[in-house]
Amino acid sequence: LAAKDTMRQTGALQRVEGLLREGGVQVVVSDDVAPNPRDVDIDRQAKVFLREKCDFAVGLGGGSSMDSAKAVAFLAAQGGGTILDYLAGGPHADLAGTKPAFPILCITTTAGTGSEATPWWVVTNTKHHEKPGTGNDSTRPAVSIIDPELMLSLPKEVTRNTGIDVLFHAMESFLANVATPFTELLSREAMRLVVRYLGPVLENGQDLEARSQMAWANTIAGIAIGEGKSSTVGIHALGHSIGGQTDAPHGLTMAAVGPAYMRHTWDADPARYAEVTRLLGYASAGESDQELARRSSEALEKTLEKFGCRVRMGGLGVKASMIEAMADSTFKTMAGCLNCSLKSLSRADVIGLYQASL
Amino acid sequence: LAAKDTMRQTGALQRVEGLLREGGVQVVVSDDVAPNPRDVDIDRQAKVFLREKCDFAVGLGGGSSMDSAKAVAFLAAQGGGTILDYLAGGPHADLAGTKPAFPILCITTTAGTGSEATPWWVVTNTKHHEKPGTGNDSTRPAVSIIDPELMLSLPKEVTRNTGIDVLFHAMESFLANVATPFTELLSREAMRLVVRYLGPVLENGQDLEARSQMAWANTIAGIAIGEGKSSTVGIHALGHSIGGQTDAPHGLTMAAVGPAYMRHTWDADPARYAEVTRLLGYASAGESDQELARRSSEALEKTLEKFGCRVRMGGLGVKASMIEAMADSTFKTMAGCLNCSLKSLSRADVIGLYQASL
Repeated sequence: LAAKDTMRQTGALQRVEGLLREGGVQVVVSDDVAPNPRDVDIDRQAKVFLREKCDFAVGLGGGSSMDSAKAVAFLAAQGGGTILDYLAGGPHADLAGTKPAFPILCITTTAGTGSEATPWWVVTNTKHHEKPGTGNDSTRPAVSIIDPELMLSLPKEVTRNTGIDVLFHAMESFLANVATPFTELLSREAMRLVVRYLGPVLENGQDLEARSQMAWANTIAGIAIGEGKSSTVGIHALGHSIGGQTDAPHGLTMAAVGPAYMRHTWDADPARYAEVTRLLGYASAGESDQELARRSSEALEKTLEKFGCRVRMGGLGVKASMIEAMADSTFKTMAGCLNCSLKSLSRADVIGLYQASL
Repeated sequence: LAAKDTMRQTGALQRVEGLLREGGVQVVVSDDVAPNPRDVDIDRQAKVFLREKCDFAVGLGGGSSMDSAKAVAFLAAQGGGTILDYLAGGPHADLAGTKPAFPILCITTTAGTGSEATPWWVVTNTKHHEKPGTGNDSTRPAVSIIDPELMLSLPKEVTRNTGIDVLFHAMESFLANVATPFTELLSREAMRLVVRYLGPVLENGQDLEARSQMAWANTIAGIAIGEGKSSTVGIHALGHSIGGQTDAPHGLTMAAVGPAYMRHTWDADPARYAEVTRLLGYASAGESDQELARRSSEALEKTLEKFGCRVRMGGLGVKASMIEAMADSTFKTMAGCLNCSLKSLSRADVIGLYQASL
C-alpha cells in the first residue's frame, strides 16, 4: 500500500488499511512516497514487495502514489532489480517480453493525474534528471476507486495544479493525431467540466458537487489519454522535461509551455484548434475557424490566468542553460507523445518552444 | 454464421465466409434468419451448431441476425433444447446457473439495434406472441465489426426504422433511472447525431459520412443501453409487446407509443425531459425547464414526423382487443426496462398508454 504520509494525517491511510484488514488482507504500508517518485524509491519498494510476498499493489493518493504502486507492481513482477532498466534509455525500455505486472488497485485523492484510469506511470530518472512516462496493458489498474469526498481536504495549490493537468489531458488528447470519436467525446466533456468547475472548487474546496464534477472530468480525461493508442501531445512531452530538471509541479510545467505550443501548431488543423477556443469559452460570434484557431493560444493563456496559474518556465526554476538538455530529454523520454502531435516537431522547434516559454 | 439471404444478394455473406475460410475457419452458414427471429428457428439453429461442433457464432446483418447468433451461442452452450426455457415465463428465465455462451462475433449492417454493443438479444415466443429481451455478460459479443460501407446498400425503409431505434435507445437510456454520467454522455451524443444525420442518410443512402455518423450513434447508444445496469425504459417495454403481436418493425413500435409515454412521464424529472426537448432541437429561448419538459412529447412527435415515421398502433395492425394481452406481456417479458422508468407504471397506466397510442 503506497501512500504519502499526508494520507496518514487525513486518516485515509488508516481507513484503507483497516478496510483491507477487515477483508482478510495482510497489508504492508509504504508511506514514504515522494512527490515525483524516483527510481531509487521504486527499486527499494519493489524489494519490500517481494520480501513480504505481496500479491497486489495499492496506490492511495495522487499520481505519485498511484504511479509508485504501478511501477512497484511492474518491477516486482520482473523479479526486482532496477526500474531504470525499463525506462527510456534502459535495455528494456520498450517493455517487450516483460512479465505482466502484479494487479494494481488505485484510489485517487486528487483530480488529478488520471493515473487511476490509464496504464501510464512516470518515474524520475535521478541519474539523467528525466521524467519518462511508460506503461503497458498490464499496468492499467484492475480496480480504481474515485471518491470525491477524499478530495475535500486537498489544499488549494494541489487542487489547482492537478486541475490544470486535467485540462491539458483533455485538450491534448483532443489535439492528438490518434484521437478517435470515442476519445474526442470524453476530451470535449472533460474540457467543458474543467472550464465550468475548476473555478468553484478553487473558490470553495468543500463544494462536493464541484469536486465530484472535477473527479469525473479527471477520470474521463484519463480514459481519453489511456484508451487504445490515445495519448497527450507535445505539451506533455515538453512539460515532463521541465519536471525532470526542476521537480516543479506537473500541472505548472504544462502551463508554462502550453501557449507557445498552441501558437506554433494551430495551423496544422484550424477546425480542431478553433473548437478548443470555443470549448475554453473565448469564441465570439462570426469568427472564422482560422481566426478562432489562431487565437487558441490566447484562449489558453486567458484560461490559465483565470485559474491563477499563468507561469513561465523561469518562474519554475528553469535556466536558459538547461534548454538543450531538456530538448534532448524530450526526444529521448517522451517521443511517444511528441509523435502524437498534429504538427511534427523537430529538435529546433522544441528548443524554440522552450525559449519562447522561458 | 447466421445471416438473412439478403446478405448473399449484397455479397456480404460470401465476403465474410471467404475471409473466415482464408483465416482457416470452417464455416457453417445459416442464411435462413427471419426478421424478428423465432424460438423455433433458434432451437433448430442451435441443433446445427452442436451437430457441426461449432466453436463460435457469427451474426452478420441487423438485429435479427446478431440476436440469432447470440441466442444460438447461448442455447448451444446449454447443450441445446429449447430457447423458451430461458425466456420470460420459462423455468430458467433469470439465466441463473446457466453456462456461458459460446463466443459471439457481430458484424452489423444496420444502424441499428445496437446489438453489436450490448449483451441483449430478443427472440419471439411464438406460443405466447411475445418478444422478450434477455441476455447476460456471456452474450456480449467478443468482437464486433462496425463498417459503415456495409450500410450503403440498406433500403430507405430499413434505414429509417433502425435509425429511429437508435433515437429511442439514446433518449430512453438518458431517461432511465439507472443512467450514469458515462451513459448520459453517450446518450446525449447519440441523440445529437441522429437529429443531425438521420435526415441526410434518408435523403441519400450513399452518403458515407452520414452513414458513418449514424453507425457511430448506433454503437454508442448501444453501449448506453448495455453498460452496467443501464437500459431502455417503458417505451421499449411497450414497443416489444406490439412487436410480439404484430411483427411490426421494431423502430416503428416505439414510434407508436413514445409520445404518449413522454406525455405521461415528463413531470417525473422536468430538467431531464427539458434536455430531451433541447437535444431534439425544439427548445425556444427563455422557456422554463417545466415548459420544455411538458413539450418533450410534442418535440418527439415533430422529430418522428420529420423522419417520416409518425405512426399510431392501429397503423401497425394493433386492435383494441389486443391491448390487455399486450399489457400482460409487457409486465411479463419487459419488466426490467419498465422498472428503469423515472415514473413507475401500473398495469392501468400501461393500458392507458396503449389506448392513447391506438
